[in-house]
Amino acid sequence: MTSIKNNYLSMIEKLTISDKRAIARVISVIESDDEKATIILKKIFHKTGNAYRIGITGPPGAGKSTITNQLTKHLLSLSKSVAIIAVDPTSPFSGGALLGDRVRMNDIGALDNVFIRSMATRGSLGGLSKKTIDTADILDASGFDYIIFETVGVGQSELDIAKVADSTIVTLVPESGDTIQAMKAGLMEIADIFVLNKSDRPEADKAFISLQAALHLRNFDPNDWPQPIIKATATANKGIIEIAEKIEEHRGFCKSNSICLQKRIKNYKLRVMEIVETSLKQETWNEYNISVLETSMDKVLSGKLSPYELAANILLNR
Amino acid sequence: MTSIKNNYLSMIEKLTISDKRAIARVISVIESDDEKATIILKKIFHKTGNAYRIGITGPPGAGKSTITNQLTKHLLSLSKSVAIIAVDPTSPFSGGALLGDRVRMNDIGALDNVFIRSMATRGSLGGLSKKTIDTADILDASGFDYIIFETVGVGQSELDIAKVADSTIVTLVPESGDTIQAMKAGLMEIADIFVLNKSDRPEADKAFISLQAALHLRNFDPNDWPQPIIKATATANKGIIEIAEKIEEHRGFCKSNSICLQKRIKNYKLRVMEIVETSLKQETWNEYNISVLETSMDKVLSGKLSPYELAANILLNR
Repeated sequence: MTSIKNNYLSMIEKLTISDKRAIARVISVIESDDEKATIILKKIFHKTGNAYRIGITGPPGAGKSTITNQLTKHLLSLSKSVAIIAVDPTSPFSGGALLGDRVRMNDIGALDNVFIRSMATRGSLGGLSKKTIDTADILDASGFDYIIFETVGVGQSELDIAKVADSTIVTLVPESGDTIQAMKAGLMEIADIFVLNKSDRPEADKAFISLQAALHLRNFDPNDWPQPIIKATATANKGIIEIAEKIEEHRGFCKSNSICLQKRIKNYKLRVMEIVETSLKQETWNEYNISVLETSMDKVLSGKLSPYELAANILLNR
Repeated sequence: MTSIKNNYLSMIEKLTISDKRAIARVISVIESDDEKATIILKKIFHKTGNAYRIGITGPPGAGKSTITNQLTKHLLSLSKSVAIIAVDPTSPFSGGALLGDRVRMNDIGALDNVFIRSMATRGSLGGLSKKTIDTADILDASGFDYIIFETVGVGQSELDIAKVADSTIVTLVPESGDTIQAMKAGLMEIADIFVLNKSDRPEADKAFISLQAALHLRNFDPNDWPQPIIKATATANKGIIEIAEKIEEHRGFCKSNSICLQKRIKNYKLRVMEIVETSLKQETWNEYNISVLETSMDKVLSGKLSPYELAANILLNR
């Protein structure tokens, strides 16, 4: 027991941005072993809170990876360190993450002061997994200046980004109906900064105006941050500095703003609730209850036992 | 107590497709009162299993509402009754469902043998809410021949449709990258039937071939259902009869197929698990624990108490 404990301590002590291998090893422990994860996360919590957490989300094809890539290069040029967590949607059947978009990131992944990790959005909670947030804490404690969460493709994870990020960037492209779809998907409300990417396209001005109009239609609290729209062409590195500047502006705004504080408190609460609920599930779905579930399926299929009655039986077996 | 019980019984007895008001009232009880919901759902479970459940999903703008609309009209012409559950993505902040697409459905909502209900995807489980599945059971017990689940916009709910539907239809449009995005989002694997909508567009043939190619690339179990691709132009009512025929074909195939049975068993298990977990949460987040959570936030914000330690404290208080 003592040796295991010492092993943890030595791993945690090595957590600095210059030792990517140590970081990767600790994250692997976090991903694979819940018990050890809890011990590690308790130990490092006091070291967290220094990294600034940026979320980049938006519909598929909006250029999230390119913006992440360019923004990272810009932050590096300001002598900052950047950790990127790429959140991949997991297929509900295969359980595997699609890593296509990650290939493009390889050119920055090898640089000093950059750490990239792809994580799948597993688990019945949907959206961002608990492990993603745990990993951010590890990276925070390691000393990174920025942590960028980037979602890939469609999913609840797009909306959940706002629960973990200090500044959330929603990227859109000037395609017909894109802003409407963004509103529908709830992206409008989670954005701290809008980026209208691919702004060199002819439809860009129209899209800009329609997005602006949509923002004006919303009930706006005068004490809240006014969501800016930045025109960008990430592939040509246009608009990236403006994005970085707006992030800093939002960061400064949030230091003294009670709405931002309320958001942080809400996110911490959600996190605690998720930890509690994950633990409850692990406790409930023990071998015995899983076997009750399995062996009762015949009765459910034949209509003799309702899912509600079976659930009640399982709840009694705790 | 006896009068309340009798009240339930009378409500449940009135559940027939000809009494839409009774159905709507029972669904409202299901939505608002968990305790009563459990009693009702246990009582009606033996009446369920007759409705055929169709899921319609796909990326935003693919014409899901139009297909639902036209398919419903076709089924009505075959003297069938249809209930539609429109699953709206809920904004994580406002909690409200966007009902824009529902407007189009008004013309069929007033017809006999049609019942339409919009439901928001609330709750931390993400995706389809438990209430959505409960509502389907009510509609099933009321005697509808078909229940159509239709998702609106982006979200985990798109993938969750496959967990409740007997046949899942994935609609795509011939736009660049659409099939690739469908693969990424996991839509490929949940589809029993693909509908390539807006097939009158010039790019349609190319999209058809690329979708076909993508399907061939997958590992295909020869005992499994071969996913067909139907070309449709839903606004012109083209391809709707083919969709209905393929649904019946899939239905027939599944009667004798073990892969379909396994899928049904898996879905029942997921449902029981969700009922159990919802109940655990309600038990845990009692007034006392919520107040512990609220009052501990200062310590978490100042780094004195980690979310993991707070969660452990709450777990002790059960």
